[in-house]
Amino acid sequence: MSEKSSVTKNGKTDTSKTLNRRQALGALTVGVGASLAAPSVVRADTKITWKMAMTWPRNAPGVGVNAQRIAEMITAMSGGRLTVELYAGGELVPPFEVFDAVSRGVAQMGHAASYYWQGKNQAFHFFTGVPFGLTVAEYSGWLYFGGGQELWQRAYEPFGVLPFFAGSSGPQAGGWFRKEINSLSDLQGIKMRIAGLGGEAMRKLGVNVVLLPPGEIFSAMQSGTVDAAEWVGPWNDLAFGLYKVANYYYMPAFHEIGPALEATVNKEAYEALPSDLQEIVKRAVMASANESYADFTYGNVKSFAPLLAKEGVELKTFPDEVMQALYKAAEESLVEISETSPLAKEIYDSFTGYRKEANSYAQASDLAALNMRASVM
Amino acid sequence: MSEKSSVTKNGKTDTSKTLNRRQALGALTVGVGASLAAPSVVRADTKITWKMAMTWPRNAPGVGVNAQRIAEMITAMSGGRLTVELYAGGELVPPFEVFDAVSRGVAQMGHAASYYWQGKNQAFHFFTGVPFGLTVAEYSGWLYFGGGQELWQRAYEPFGVLPFFAGSSGPQAGGWFRKEINSLSDLQGIKMRIAGLGGEAMRKLGVNVVLLPPGEIFSAMQSGTVDAAEWVGPWNDLAFGLYKVANYYYMPAFHEIGPALEATVNKEAYEALPSDLQEIVKRAVMASANESYADFTYGNVKSFAPLLAKEGVELKTFPDEVMQALYKAAEESLVEISETSPLAKEIYDSFTGYRKEANSYAQASDLAALNMRASVM
Repeated sequence: MSEKSSVTKNGKTDTSKTLNRRQALGALTVGVGASLAAPSVVRADTKITWKMAMTWPRNAPGVGVNAQRIAEMITAMSGGRLTVELYAGGELVPPFEVFDAVSRGVAQMGHAASYYWQGKNQAFHFFTGVPFGLTVAEYSGWLYFGGGQELWQRAYEPFGVLPFFAGSSGPQAGGWFRKEINSLSDLQGIKMRIAGLGGEAMRKLGVNVVLLPPGEIFSAMQSGTVDAAEWVGPWNDLAFGLYKVANYYYMPAFHEIGPALEATVNKEAYEALPSDLQEIVKRAVMASANESYADFTYGNVKSFAPLLAKEGVELKTFPDEVMQALYKAAEESLVEISETSPLAKEIYDSFTGYRKEANSYAQASDLAALNMRASVM
Repeated sequence: MSEKSSVTKNGKTDTSKTLNRRQALGALTVGVGASLAAPSVVRADTKITWKMAMTWPRNAPGVGVNAQRIAEMITAMSGGRLTVELYAGGELVPPFEVFDAVSRGVAQMGHAASYYWQGKNQAFHFFTGVPFGLTVAEYSGWLYFGGGQELWQRAYEPFGVLPFFAGSSGPQAGGWFRKEINSLSDLQGIKMRIAGLGGEAMRKLGVNVVLLPPGEIFSAMQSGTVDAAEWVGPWNDLAFGLYKVANYYYMPAFHEIGPALEATVNKEAYEALPSDLQEIVKRAVMASANESYADFTYGNVKSFAPLLAKEGVELKTFPDEVMQALYKAAEESLVEISETSPLAKEIYDSFTGYRKEANSYAQASDLAALNMRASVM
């Protein structure tokens, strides 16, 4: 797939900051006879090919598969006028260079998570999620209706990248540990693969935090490079075989209760599209966000019992002492981020103000409903 | 809006069972010059107009507004090749005749909820939801990945109607009561507006159940025609002004923890579309399902405190005795429905088997995550 009509001849990252306009817009092929027809017919006949680079391994459940579905939806809805070709992590660019690739137009689209680029702007964390943050529906509510999308666009604006919410796993798992965590002292000095602000909170509590690309988690656990690792939840962790390399499975994740995936689009390429194709790109990602959350949820529901049945696996929850300390550490990080720029402060205020209201409503609604169902069944 | 290029000249329901093919397919207009062009250009130039009839009042938050958004998405993604005109409840057909209208092709699309048509097949209840049922993500998981969509299509097949999941309110409220419900005896003989199997369960416990169209709930409460009524949740109930006519607000709803909205399509009209427009219709509804759930969640989060601040409003939960009795009554109804046909049994088995697994996973995941957040914040 990576060979076909490629604009960039190899998988290497272009280190030049100069935007090649032709490259950013994608490959254009005008159909036979189009030059003789009316403008609307030219438009309908013009073939555009986009590349989508993703952080994930090809066919990774939930992530790689859903990126593939976005590509297919866009191609199908546009009747082939906009074809999106998918490149897994490492095929076009390395997993953690997806954002740069979209920014420079090496790829017109990306599929990843915002917090992988927090080195550019720490406020990006708010667009994947924060520890003890928002559920998926609360998150999409904030993004679509509470001003979150606009803030996200402003944060990505300097990079020429347009972000879209691409779904979520729902509440993740807290990770796989080779030894039990019964107190704060058990965290001291362990090496853990954990992403985002969850990693920051763990670091503040004495954990030696490393961030590895998804495709390297299993081997790092197996080789002993790390002592603990979080990936997603039962479905994905079962697929990665993490139960083979650690026994203690901590749920739920304190750090990701509804983390957002992102689909990014090179802004110049997006704006060059006719309005119907713009709408198709936007709505394909919105549809995928729904399908992706459903996919994760179904996968987790069906994988939970089989995973717990694996030899040696023990389901655990972090003790209260650890939870409280993680919350305190994470809130400190949020305040630190809010002090990095006026925009970061604006994002922090919007997110945390809404989270407070959401937490209050959820106690009478989602939480009460789940408790009610569990109590009668 | 209802005047423009209408196929059916008036808003009355066609009582004939004969499908008028031209009517079912929608109004077709072929663009100027299209007959001279190649087939793909003819297709791109053909203008189709569809009617979407909905059960809801125009601009009703969450429901009417999201139906409008589906219509707009389809029109925009198709570049105007497929224009969808929206008709509120009563404008083209009465609110509870939407399904028949789509079945007969009086409208090509409908926006409603499956349980309103349970008189045709009681198994339709499973496609809106059952008491103590599935959360939104569990539901979409079952529909998209667990065989639910296929079962739904088989249930609607005899009517020539194709169903799509169009989102959800999330957990609803249990309703507005003029007197407190402290025991089962308090339910005896009260008149309540409540939809679906929740209504059936209430009936079994001695409640005098009535089903009124959404637009009539407020006036029925105000005039004393009913003593209690459920509609949706804080956002929608605030919009309908229900706090003005009763003080006791019960949350959460035992009967709808993630009820599904539906968008229906006349099957013949759908199959007559070129494949890109079919994909556009399907994905527009899938995108709307996401946006709709976000819309409800954001609306509820922001409306919860203002609603509770209204004079006289008291937040209540049903006592355990009532919950247990409602669960027992509702489960009896599900078994009764499962005995109505082999397909109903198949749907029952699929839904209830999955619900059991989902309830188990949710206790370690969603429920634990919400408890965790509430405990630290």
